[in-house]
Amino acid sequence: MPPADSDFNSLLNAKVRIVNLQLDSLLAEQSEIQEDLRAALAYALSAPGKRVRSALVLWSCEVVAGRDNHEARIAAAAIEMVHTYSLIHDDLPAMDDDDLRRGWPTCHKAFNEATAILAGDALLTLAFEVVASKIADACLAAELITQLARASGAAGMIAGQMADLQAENTAGTVEALEYIHTNKTAKMFRCAAVMGGLCGQAELGRLKAEPGQLDALARYGLKIGLGFQIADDILDVSASSEQLGKTAGKDVQAAKCTYPAVVGIDKSREIERQLAHDAIDALEIFEKKADVLRQLAQALLEREK
Amino acid sequence: MPPADSDFNSLLNAKVRIVNLQLDSLLAEQSEIQEDLRAALAYALSAPGKRVRSALVLWSCEVVAGRDNHEARIAAAAIEMVHTYSLIHDDLPAMDDDDLRRGWPTCHKAFNEATAILAGDALLTLAFEVVASKIADACLAAELITQLARASGAAGMIAGQMADLQAENTAGTVEALEYIHTNKTAKMFRCAAVMGGLCGQAELGRLKAEPGQLDALARYGLKIGLGFQIADDILDVSASSEQLGKTAGKDVQAAKCTYPAVVGIDKSREIERQLAHDAIDALEIFEKKADVLRQLAQALLEREK
Repeated sequence: MPPADSDFNSLLNAKVRIVNLQLDSLLAEQSEIQEDLRAALAYALSAPGKRVRSALVLWSCEVVAGRDNHEARIAAAAIEMVHTYSLIHDDLPAMDDDDLRRGWPTCHKAFNEATAILAGDALLTLAFEVVASKIADACLAAELITQLARASGAAGMIAGQMADLQAENTAGTVEALEYIHTNKTAKMFRCAAVMGGLCGQAELGRLKAEPGQLDALARYGLKIGLGFQIADDILDVSASSEQLGKTAGKDVQAAKCTYPAVVGIDKSREIERQLAHDAIDALEIFEKKADVLRQLAQALLEREK
Repeated sequence: MPPADSDFNSLLNAKVRIVNLQLDSLLAEQSEIQEDLRAALAYALSAPGKRVRSALVLWSCEVVAGRDNHEARIAAAAIEMVHTYSLIHDDLPAMDDDDLRRGWPTCHKAFNEATAILAGDALLTLAFEVVASKIADACLAAELITQLARASGAAGMIAGQMADLQAENTAGTVEALEYIHTNKTAKMFRCAAVMGGLCGQAELGRLKAEPGQLDALARYGLKIGLGFQIADDILDVSASSEQLGKTAGKDVQAAKCTYPAVVGIDKSREIERQLAHDAIDALEIFEKKADVLRQLAQALLEREK
């Protein structure tokens, strides 16, 4: 996401490095993984992702506890694994049938379809394993797993993908779009913010003791998640494949139900700005401590990929 | 599994009823599931499965604590969800490409391929969600999730499926077969037995305090799991599709690496008997309390589907 000021970009890059190292080390520790699966997992996880969800986990922990911590890094890696699995499965021929992702051939193109299905399954499973086995505070681990499973499951991300597939070639309404984007994307952003907040609270010995903090982070996460997805829709019609690292114009080609298609580009940009504004509003109780999340909301508006 | 004495069958049927009710109620509680996904999940979960893994969870809990309990019922439902997801994905065209499962059209035949992929993903996710959210003892929940994820992940069931696909049309060795069956099937049986034991120990306030019990259950589970899979291989060549509820002769047709193909039917039966014997041996420390597990080992030897 190049523009936004360079201070913010170095903050984001620092988080991306932490998440990448955490992912590498978690994968390396899994000594018994079947070797061809390991290659597919490493491939999918090392493709240059934006790591926005995982950075959001770390920053939300910082907002609550003053710094990120081991638990937040595990949760960040877990949400990145879940996000990556969802990309692998969404790109499959039976789903969105895409050849390019994060600038690289999609997993089923680089390997084969069976390997891609299994690699996705393995990443989803591993996400839950690392949270359950690497976070010593079992109450925190159980709460994180509950949040992550709900956000990514059949009442969350998977519901969004299902509705998205079904909406292809339909006229589309704003309500249908909101359902798709909320479930497919925004609930995972909300989950990231809440998971980070929980890790911060646990560090202070105050797990779930201040629900107001979690509510604020949840509202923030949902709003920027929705804004992020609308920005994605806009970029699909306005940017090149090279900029995006995935096939541009794909939504139009697949007759996907998107904001620009349903309400037009100008109105889409207006909704996006309003969402960033609402997201920033939700952070009031944190005062200056949440400045980095305000910058993130701003950066998402201005992103070019 | 008709033969085996009728007392054992009524014990098994009682457990199957408990598991089916638990699955129904867990699915009904998920009020926000996307409706088409709910139909696919309900379809896959209600197909008449043998429920051996989930019965094993309940019985292992009984062996340790004298009765099964709420935690074991949740764990049993979770392992059945994971098993069901694995069947849905294994049956996909890119994998084993099968049309019939548990006597019913496979999920991608009854719905479509995208729905089957997503339904499998949703079941896997839901399995972890129910353990994390419905078991109040967070230490137990975290341990169960760790066990379930390891058994079913890229160093377990998924590794077995990957190796199984790769072994098609190869000559096959006993070592390769053991790797496939141990990972694809036996580790999940071991996990079932250990999860049940953990739930029993937690009930007595002795979670992980008696590792000898868990070791014995783990050894038992691994042996009957391997025996179960060899029995499956034998049935594939000796039984009809009607008996099996899935396409008979499919392994031969797909040039799958199976025990009968590699060592012959007689030797396969001998190995199967030895495994049942070893499984029963592992139960010594439980004395008479483990009789039902001894009957299960016997029944698996004699099963006709």
